[in-house]
Amino acid sequence: MKTIPFTKNQIEALIGGHPTPLYVYDEEGIRNQARRLIEAFSWNPGFKEYYAIKALPNPAVAQILKEEGCGADCSALPELVIADRAGIKGEEIMYTSNDTPFEEFAEAKKMGAIINLDDVNHLEYLEEHVGLPEIICFRYNPGPALSGNEIIGNPAEAKFGVTREQLLEGYRLAKEKGVGRYGLHTMPISNELSAKYFVDSARRLFVLAREIEEKIGIQFEFINLGGGLGIPYKPEEKEFDLSAFSDGVRKAYEEHFGKRAAPVKIFLECGRYITGPFGYLVSRVRHVKESYKKYVGLDACMANLMRPAMYGAYHHITVLGRENAPTDAKYDIVGSLCENNDKFAINRQLPKINSGDILVIHDTGAHGHAMGFNYNSKLRSAEFLLRPDGSFKMIRRAETTEDYFATLNF
Amino acid sequence: MKTIPFTKNQIEALIGGHPTPLYVYDEEGIRNQARRLIEAFSWNPGFKEYYAIKALPNPAVAQILKEEGCGADCSALPELVIADRAGIKGEEIMYTSNDTPFEEFAEAKKMGAIINLDDVNHLEYLEEHVGLPEIICFRYNPGPALSGNEIIGNPAEAKFGVTREQLLEGYRLAKEKGVGRYGLHTMPISNELSAKYFVDSARRLFVLAREIEEKIGIQFEFINLGGGLGIPYKPEEKEFDLSAFSDGVRKAYEEHFGKRAAPVKIFLECGRYITGPFGYLVSRVRHVKESYKKYVGLDACMANLMRPAMYGAYHHITVLGRENAPTDAKYDIVGSLCENNDKFAINRQLPKINSGDILVIHDTGAHGHAMGFNYNSKLRSAEFLLRPDGSFKMIRRAETTEDYFATLNF
Repeated sequence: MKTIPFTKNQIEALIGGHPTPLYVYDEEGIRNQARRLIEAFSWNPGFKEYYAIKALPNPAVAQILKEEGCGADCSALPELVIADRAGIKGEEIMYTSNDTPFEEFAEAKKMGAIINLDDVNHLEYLEEHVGLPEIICFRYNPGPALSGNEIIGNPAEAKFGVTREQLLEGYRLAKEKGVGRYGLHTMPISNELSAKYFVDSARRLFVLAREIEEKIGIQFEFINLGGGLGIPYKPEEKEFDLSAFSDGVRKAYEEHFGKRAAPVKIFLECGRYITGPFGYLVSRVRHVKESYKKYVGLDACMANLMRPAMYGAYHHITVLGRENAPTDAKYDIVGSLCENNDKFAINRQLPKINSGDILVIHDTGAHGHAMGFNYNSKLRSAEFLLRPDGSFKMIRRAETTEDYFATLNF
Repeated sequence: MKTIPFTKNQIEALIGGHPTPLYVYDEEGIRNQARRLIEAFSWNPGFKEYYAIKALPNPAVAQILKEEGCGADCSALPELVIADRAGIKGEEIMYTSNDTPFEEFAEAKKMGAIINLDDVNHLEYLEEHVGLPEIICFRYNPGPALSGNEIIGNPAEAKFGVTREQLLEGYRLAKEKGVGRYGLHTMPISNELSAKYFVDSARRLFVLAREIEEKIGIQFEFINLGGGLGIPYKPEEKEFDLSAFSDGVRKAYEEHFGKRAAPVKIFLECGRYITGPFGYLVSRVRHVKESYKKYVGLDACMANLMRPAMYGAYHHITVLGRENAPTDAKYDIVGSLCENNDKFAINRQLPKINSGDILVIHDTGAHGHAMGFNYNSKLRSAEFLLRPDGSFKMIRRAETTEDYFATLNF
């Protein structure tokens, strides 16, 4: 059963001053989730969660996560600005991007971020244009050794990372060049609910790390297991088993690093897992229409939330204030964008819906507002933080027509 | 064979002052295409092409099309602003949207636009909130009577438009309410290359229009056949047969409206057909990478062009200045966005590519820049008009970090 951290009265008061659609993020939920993750890995000295900024790129949210002890996973210049605004500094930032221009490497290095390389050739590119940083980390792509899932696809077809042979070559070269500190990174999958998958991936990465350490004669300071921890979008799905994940990683860690003198730090870079379940897209019903099917037309559209249209993703939807009403009507829930796939749900069983009802689209705290666009000249919505005291704080204003035309005025 | 209306020298001069990626639109190509379409339907007194603003929502382009005699198809408030800025006024605008709030109807009515209703119930909604306009037009959805294609999907599953029975009810009601002028609209399909498909659709719409005229006792002033005319994205595809389309529609028109005293005006609302082939996304190669596959990394990414990622759409790609080189290398052409499907092409045969090469992504004049987003904090590119005299005019500046953060400053 999906719950909501606010009441209908609270939302109606909020909407009184701000038009729908709007995003609401539950600060307490986000804080607790970050704490749970960090607590689960407290057995590892130096463990750090680098929050993946792209999931919900709002400095206010990044600052909350900084307060909880998270760093930031960034992969583009404005994301570095967000980290900086949130007070996340130096090696609390990992810069993991692909196809990276040297200007971005330069900025990341200037900020003291850990730079994660997507190609062995980038070592010399970095050296030539920016100078080598203190720490070198490469992103490993397991390729055919690992099957993917439907979202991130097959690793052998993924543009990211390097092969095992390239890793060996890369660290050998880095050592030759006098680099003194090393990390290893992978990002095995996206939105995966099986803890076993991540434990297996971690074990393989630990084996590989030890092999590299022995063959090259270096010591890894950290191993970044990446992100990709899934969240239960569907009510019948179970939560990701954080204990099983942590316990499994710990066991593998002890097997492979238990006898090493210095401990190796475990890093994660979760985004969706931290903020995803704690975001709510709140939208009012404009019209209910019946043609060949029954349609509920919202004031939100795919410009506010792209995942259903882009991935066919499921997002749970409830009618605010009627969460327990029988779901005896069937609708397509749509927006007003002139695009056939502008649908939040297809053939969804819901209570009977009327124009003016407020609908809540759940689990939109990650890759929701962040993936919005202005197609069909649709404007993007405001974002609000629901604070632990029950008040709402606007952390992004809604776009205006002036914003839409900003790049035409020069 | 795909051609390019600019030379490498011209582009290098342009890039000298403006960073890639950038969009270039060929003014002459756009003008000629609009002229061809209008000329093809010159047999119909009152024919009008309502350019679908959402394809390339730039006032400079809308103004060019206004000069060629086009109106504007709008479906959101800022699109009305674009039409207005381009000098497109009153009934030169059709407002075709779905799930429309009354504020939008009010603005469209104020501007004197033709309002096209997506639901019969909107007639009373309009009357209640805004007052009835002079002309009433409904959008027809043929439903199971017509099969779709893979882009627009199955009409019976489309949120747009009303059924035949609802049309009859709608016009009867409009007549009762004293509306004096009538139009009929449909939008059968998207990006379809078969002229026969559109002729069949037009014939069915003419039959339906005559049936409505007889049963309700009204006369249609116009019939809007919609858009959806396809363009040949792949080099082996043939151009849409405009003559076959026009001739077929003319024959059907003469059959069904030949004996009616007053002629009925034919409207179209093409977007892609007008601007699509005349847009070029110009991007520089940052890196060439080999892991499990060979990757060409551009400075453009899916933030600049979404169609390959969203629809798996094909866009032809050439290496500027080496258009005739043998295509004996195979690459995935990718961007720097942290998303697995950030690929412009997969396993594409191209000449051998080096870092620094300039690649041209063809047929990006419609639903290209328009569908861009800021995911992963990527900034959107500038747009340039290539004028008939060979000069470039910037018609949109590139986004800056300040733009990206605009909605955080309040």
